[in-house]
Amino acid sequence: MQSRPTLEDVARHAGVSRALVSIVMRDAPGASEETRARVRRAADDIGYRPDPRARRLRQLRTKLLGVTFAAGQEFHAELIDGVYAAADDFGYEVVLSGVTPHHDERRAVRALVDDRCEAVVLIGPDLPTAELEALAATTPVVVVARKVRGVDAVRSDDTAGAAMAVDHLYGLGHRRITYLDGGRAPGAAERRRGYTRAMRAAGLHAEVRPGGLTEREGATAAAALLAADQPLPSAVFAFNDRCALGVLDVLVRARIAVPDQVSVMGFDDSPLASLAHIDLSTIRQEIPQLAHAAVSRLVSRLDNDDGDAQPTDIVVPPTLVARGTTAVPA
Amino acid sequence: MQSRPTLEDVARHAGVSRALVSIVMRDAPGASEETRARVRRAADDIGYRPDPRARRLRQLRTKLLGVTFAAGQEFHAELIDGVYAAADDFGYEVVLSGVTPHHDERRAVRALVDDRCEAVVLIGPDLPTAELEALAATTPVVVVARKVRGVDAVRSDDTAGAAMAVDHLYGLGHRRITYLDGGRAPGAAERRRGYTRAMRAAGLHAEVRPGGLTEREGATAAAALLAADQPLPSAVFAFNDRCALGVLDVLVRARIAVPDQVSVMGFDDSPLASLAHIDLSTIRQEIPQLAHAAVSRLVSRLDNDDGDAQPTDIVVPPTLVARGTTAVPA
Repeated sequence: MQSRPTLEDVARHAGVSRALVSIVMRDAPGASEETRARVRRAADDIGYRPDPRARRLRQLRTKLLGVTFAAGQEFHAELIDGVYAAADDFGYEVVLSGVTPHHDERRAVRALVDDRCEAVVLIGPDLPTAELEALAATTPVVVVARKVRGVDAVRSDDTAGAAMAVDHLYGLGHRRITYLDGGRAPGAAERRRGYTRAMRAAGLHAEVRPGGLTEREGATAAAALLAADQPLPSAVFAFNDRCALGVLDVLVRARIAVPDQVSVMGFDDSPLASLAHIDLSTIRQEIPQLAHAAVSRLVSRLDNDDGDAQPTDIVVPPTLVARGTTAVPA
Repeated sequence: MQSRPTLEDVARHAGVSRALVSIVMRDAPGASEETRARVRRAADDIGYRPDPRARRLRQLRTKLLGVTFAAGQEFHAELIDGVYAAADDFGYEVVLSGVTPHHDERRAVRALVDDRCEAVVLIGPDLPTAELEALAATTPVVVVARKVRGVDAVRSDDTAGAAMAVDHLYGLGHRRITYLDGGRAPGAAERRRGYTRAMRAAGLHAEVRPGGLTEREGATAAAALLAADQPLPSAVFAFNDRCALGVLDVLVRARIAVPDQVSVMGFDDSPLASLAHIDLSTIRQEIPQLAHAAVSRLVSRLDNDDGDAQPTDIVVPPTLVARGTTAVPA
């Protein structure tokens, strides 16, 4: 689309970094006189001129950050709160766009861009990678809770988190630990890998069963375990807390004592997990840190001169939260 | 604030309705020549001139509707989906602003107005009535799920819904029906009234106990019932589904059979209520209707000539959903 020479072209022609060209063009400190001369000559050679429209547009700042999220999801709600807090710190306002049955993700994103958001946080997006990359080419974008090649991403270390859960259960003495998988959800591949690797490292047999993201799917998985033609595992580790709650509910109704007969673990540390009567052991995602990293990345692209910097994948370590649903096996 | 004569003043002076004055001023059909002459004379008499700034502002349309909501609440999430669907029908776009620990309701509203929303839907707001009235004086506002004197409101008929729940339980044969109250939450006073009235009408003793809006509070209330120095009621009717889920969980863990020993009812028909293993009897709020009524009211204020119309209180009847947690008492 862009036919006039860019900073990039000057950099290539002069054989220096784009950042260095930017320093020279802004007369900022950080380059020798010799380099400045070389860069200016390269710029003249290829006919580079700073784009006045781009410069003007940069000054017409809305200071609006957009956020897409799934309405009704506790984890997304907490991330939103974190984004509000972080945006405040950086002097930005936040506009939300929900992903719901009547408002799909493409519309949610378009609404934010149309509403003059300068950059967008996508919480757990489902869009294909190519579409996310295309979006990121025109608008600074950061994806939260999913790893996307070619786009800034901020996420928990899901692999390490799942391994922490296995290590916790193994340390208590569990040897048959069943994992209820998250299918194609963001983070599911990483958690599955963390579980299987940690099981293998402990010399145990990995048993991955279909799970899901909701209470409904957790309940179905637990019912399947109860109906199966083999003894119950001594511990069940679910893809997330909601799935674990469905498991707990079915076990309790079936008069299976938790944790005496079966230990149960979730992932997320959602607000329900800490309720006194639930008291779910889980892996906590550090939501304020995730939100702060996401906003900080966007602000850096908008306010500093690293708008074209390489995409980064920021990974925040999760934490083990041992509560009442896990114990030494009977 | 407004010192220049308004349409209202012309109407008063001419002894006709404001709508009629508007018809004459816009040269629209619907008034006799005699009336037109009388209205024009009255306008001249008091020095009325259409406000060109107001007219110009009316033309600078953003077609944006703002919505404030509590992030993470299922009921709010469903309303948001309904607002997206209804706004589509009317050709409006929607901007969301969340109410979270780091972003209180005043900020949520201000963000929407600053973002050029022409009108705002407030879902279950906590702001004092005076503040809502002041807001409505400058921006079309509709409050959902709460009755506010002086401001457009759309809500379920909470009183009728609570009475439906009592009638359902009474019809099954229950005579000791305890109600877990919603305190100062929107709709709580109406539901309490519906319960106590229906109990009185059935010749029963109303027993209102502290409840709440969350699983946590429902669990606390159920624990208090179990610890009380009297037999359990044969039915418990909770302020909402989340509260009812807390009650269910504690009863199930205490080996109290639901519905054989105690019937349990909620209010809302949230997605969790219909899960196979929960199967909660409840009162359904007709969310798409509520959302459509709210958007339609705002669009009417924005697009038609009834921007100054009297505030209305639109009440949508709820529906009884009898599922597995209520039955004939043992």
